[in-house]
Amino acid sequence: RQYRLPLARWWKQYTGADAQGDVIAGLVTAVMLIPQGMAFALMAGLPAQVGLYASMLPMLVYAVLGSSRTLSVGPVSVAAIMVAQTLHTLPAGTDPFAATLGLAFLSGVILLAMGFLRLGLLANLLSHPVLAGFTTAAALLIIVSQLPALTGAAAGAISLSTIESWFTPVLSRPQTLLLGGVAIAFLLIAGKLLQRVLESAGLPVRVAAVLTRTAPLAAIVAGALIATRLNADATTIATVGVIPGGLPTLSLPAGLELLLQLTPAALAISLVGYVESVSIAQSLAHRERERVDPNQELIALGAANLAAGLSSGMPVAGGFSRTMVNKAAGARTPFASIVAATVVTIIAAKFTPLLSGIPKVILAAIIVVGVVQLIDVRGAVAAWRYDRSDGIAFLVTAAGVLILGIETGLALGIVASFAGLIWRGARPHIAELGRVPGTEHFRNIKRHRVETRRGVELLRVDENLTFANAAWIESVLEEQVRTHPNLRHLVLVMSSVSAVDFTALGMLQRVILSLAEADVTLHLAEVKGPVMDHLASARLPVTLGRGKIYLSTHQAVVDLGE
Amino acid sequence: RQYRLPLARWWKQYTGADAQGDVIAGLVTAVMLIPQGMAFALMAGLPAQVGLYASMLPMLVYAVLGSSRTLSVGPVSVAAIMVAQTLHTLPAGTDPFAATLGLAFLSGVILLAMGFLRLGLLANLLSHPVLAGFTTAAALLIIVSQLPALTGAAAGAISLSTIESWFTPVLSRPQTLLLGGVAIAFLLIAGKLLQRVLESAGLPVRVAAVLTRTAPLAAIVAGALIATRLNADATTIATVGVIPGGLPTLSLPAGLELLLQLTPAALAISLVGYVESVSIAQSLAHRERERVDPNQELIALGAANLAAGLSSGMPVAGGFSRTMVNKAAGARTPFASIVAATVVTIIAAKFTPLLSGIPKVILAAIIVVGVVQLIDVRGAVAAWRYDRSDGIAFLVTAAGVLILGIETGLALGIVASFAGLIWRGARPHIAELGRVPGTEHFRNIKRHRVETRRGVELLRVDENLTFANAAWIESVLEEQVRTHPNLRHLVLVMSSVSAVDFTALGMLQRVILSLAEADVTLHLAEVKGPVMDHLASARLPVTLGRGKIYLSTHQAVVDLGE
Repeated sequence: RQYRLPLARWWKQYTGADAQGDVIAGLVTAVMLIPQGMAFALMAGLPAQVGLYASMLPMLVYAVLGSSRTLSVGPVSVAAIMVAQTLHTLPAGTDPFAATLGLAFLSGVILLAMGFLRLGLLANLLSHPVLAGFTTAAALLIIVSQLPALTGAAAGAISLSTIESWFTPVLSRPQTLLLGGVAIAFLLIAGKLLQRVLESAGLPVRVAAVLTRTAPLAAIVAGALIATRLNADATTIATVGVIPGGLPTLSLPAGLELLLQLTPAALAISLVGYVESVSIAQSLAHRERERVDPNQELIALGAANLAAGLSSGMPVAGGFSRTMVNKAAGARTPFASIVAATVVTIIAAKFTPLLSGIPKVILAAIIVVGVVQLIDVRGAVAAWRYDRSDGIAFLVTAAGVLILGIETGLALGIVASFAGLIWRGARPHIAELGRVPGTEHFRNIKRHRVETRRGVELLRVDENLTFANAAWIESVLEEQVRTHPNLRHLVLVMSSVSAVDFTALGMLQRVILSLAEADVTLHLAEVKGPVMDHLASARLPVTLGRGKIYLSTHQAVVDLGE
Repeated sequence: RQYRLPLARWWKQYTGADAQGDVIAGLVTAVMLIPQGMAFALMAGLPAQVGLYASMLPMLVYAVLGSSRTLSVGPVSVAAIMVAQTLHTLPAGTDPFAATLGLAFLSGVILLAMGFLRLGLLANLLSHPVLAGFTTAAALLIIVSQLPALTGAAAGAISLSTIESWFTPVLSRPQTLLLGGVAIAFLLIAGKLLQRVLESAGLPVRVAAVLTRTAPLAAIVAGALIATRLNADATTIATVGVIPGGLPTLSLPAGLELLLQLTPAALAISLVGYVESVSIAQSLAHRERERVDPNQELIALGAANLAAGLSSGMPVAGGFSRTMVNKAAGARTPFASIVAATVVTIIAAKFTPLLSGIPKVILAAIIVVGVVQLIDVRGAVAAWRYDRSDGIAFLVTAAGVLILGIETGLALGIVASFAGLIWRGARPHIAELGRVPGTEHFRNIKRHRVETRRGVELLRVDENLTFANAAWIESVLEEQVRTHPNLRHLVLVMSSVSAVDFTALGMLQRVILSLAEADVTLHLAEVKGPVMDHLASARLPVTLGRGKIYLSTHQAVVDLGE
């Protein structure tokens, strides 16, 4: 199959109706993107324009290469908090801006490399509970990171030791906290109620949804007006301040030493950004019966991050709420993102004075309200109820991220989820089977009313036979012989076994001999094709001696029963 | 079930015949143990008597607590080379003897802790290929470590950079190399031929086996006599030298800082020592239809190592060749080890002058011939042929141990074997099933001649449904719908599925809805009891809607076929 640029798939059939939807969606998204971009840059401890720059070239690159039609790629809160934590741990004297560019550049290189190696499957490293635990903890960290801006304190490190200092300004100048509180209340109410109010006022659902999403813009405009009025002495309410106009400069990343130092953080940022983006893209594609190609997404997100690193931006990914707005506003193709990126570019080039009066506390309020939805307590409870090891993976990840930092917490969560997988396979369920009366179907004697035959025992091991469980299975089989003195034939029902590794092969060979000494013959039944090929290559049928390999359990019982 | 000391199990039924076998075996084992102990201590870079001390108290402790009747616990070559490597990496100025005691003490604590936590299953961390790769590489390292002794060079670090210095003495004084070469040739021939010669001379097999194992003693006596004659100037052939007589002193381990530093090495030593010991003990127990209790072995080996650490010894484990000799010489109970430990104690206390004349080169020859059998090239080839990922685990471990050191190599091997396990589960085999004519048995349509029904597709996923493969399985299921336009019913045959985790549950819920939109109903068949309990707790039967859960695939086909 020939490779085709994703752009080529929609460009040829592009219609006027598509254009109408895309242009409106692009304008709406840009209105959301500008304050978000500035807020995420400030959260990471960077000048506000970095967030704008990350919404230009990277967005265009994704529009050309991405396999999702409506995913909105740009600065996102989770990547921003990860950048903030990374910058915080760098040795003193490191240029934070150069480090951010390095992170974006490295993330791009990592994703591109994974894409060319077709490692899209690696996204599965992050199980659902790990991802939920991660975003929940990251959302809490983000909220904490906004406390200084909400109280009017200087933007400080995310640290409990400076917590009192955030609140001292509140006593002398409570205006900031008051404005922030009002903004949060307004945004929460707008999110929950405005849609319903507008709908009951007779507006179409989609128009109501788009209008609801302009609430942040209203908050910004109102906030800027209030701040201008209050800021008689120009310090009462901190604003974004002067933003240099013009386009971002292009530059190569800093030295190799810094890049090496940033690699673990870049790995975490790219993995999380990729998995989040693909989940959002796939959930949209499912609704539209389209297809997101995981490997193409690696290439597209990699190129977008590379572009961010080379054009004075910060790491980018697909943003959940922005993508929803884009979709709700009528986006049909990536052209909507091209429109949005163009609008951002025009604003950043010519109209930055418009942005300088925006109070930082309003941006903080927008962030806080935006990330509250990432806190997934219900998901945690559901995972815990469904399966203890899934619940543990959630808790380990969340606690790890909060206590030990984002990368360590994420790594711990991945290890915990794989440990759960391995632990489950280490002590497999082994069922003794009997025949369901009147059928050729065999089930667990403990759960079903079934028929058994004297001297013939049917054991079904519910797991692949591997080094992780070989010793345990061996001890169970030998125990059977000890506890069943009349046993003549032991049939291993292999319906659940899809692999037998070298260690387990050795175990089977030992068990066959050891059962033979106790005058018990081992047989196999329902061995799957690929497993049979493997066992045959190791001459296990010969080792079985008098033991046979039956196609079905039914045949085994017919043949062996007295 | 009440806990009983293993000693209590054999002591009450002890007979005169048992005593006869045990005493002879104890004497023979002691003859082997004394040169081995000294050689392993020298290999680790320690005074020779440390190896003797490690053969006293630890051996007695294991005799009382061990669940194996004939395992001979004491100094072993693999533990010795691990100690040597650890001592080599310690900062200058560290007392090597204190560090060795610390290693033994820590190994003891680790094993005891694992025993009290009943973590015997953790032995499964080491798959057969990883263990084989490890011992093969360790054997090569041991042989290299003996080159200085074999060439008469000063015992140096195991390093290629000093390799010329090992051979300089050969040019000036070739006697050492000559004596070593003759000893190796004699030991190899004795091992291969002597047994057969003695048997054909009419001796019983067992007596011949025991006599064959005394070849090292013959080499030592002859070597000592030759060295005494040649050593006119007392430097031509290096001997063991003066060994202080008396019993080992008891002492507590060194400071906490050193212990913390030694922990990774102690973890590796205890894990390897434990797994090796249990494999030897189990292979013997299988022959005798006895039982080795993995958790009791943790306690026994832990206590033995603790004893070694407190009584001036070095880390101990079950030795393969020594255990075989013990068994072949007639050992029936751990009393044989009590005899052997007593003999070693008497020699070390009163007769050390007898040992001082033993040439180091003879001990080196004994070690080299002993470890050659650990090099398992055949096992590597068999593993590689059987399954590529098993072969890779062997190679990664062996190369890691040789290039990066014992602990790192072992850790890499463990990671590689688990990665293989996870990789195998990430892209599971998915078979389309049909009915074997005339039966109620369903098999892969690609491998068997089977009957299918139009509009009903049966898919069997040959792996547990987990986060590691959920995305992949989802894409396969959706692909089915796209490629089979006439499909009405998709039956997921769950006979190979023993677990469905939270991530996969979410996948199933999504797939049910997405298939329903394409007018395809998802059904389940042969869901195992524990899996059904889980799915029911998450109300999946409700989510299935019109889809049903069938006891057997046969029932599903009968019900759904037109």
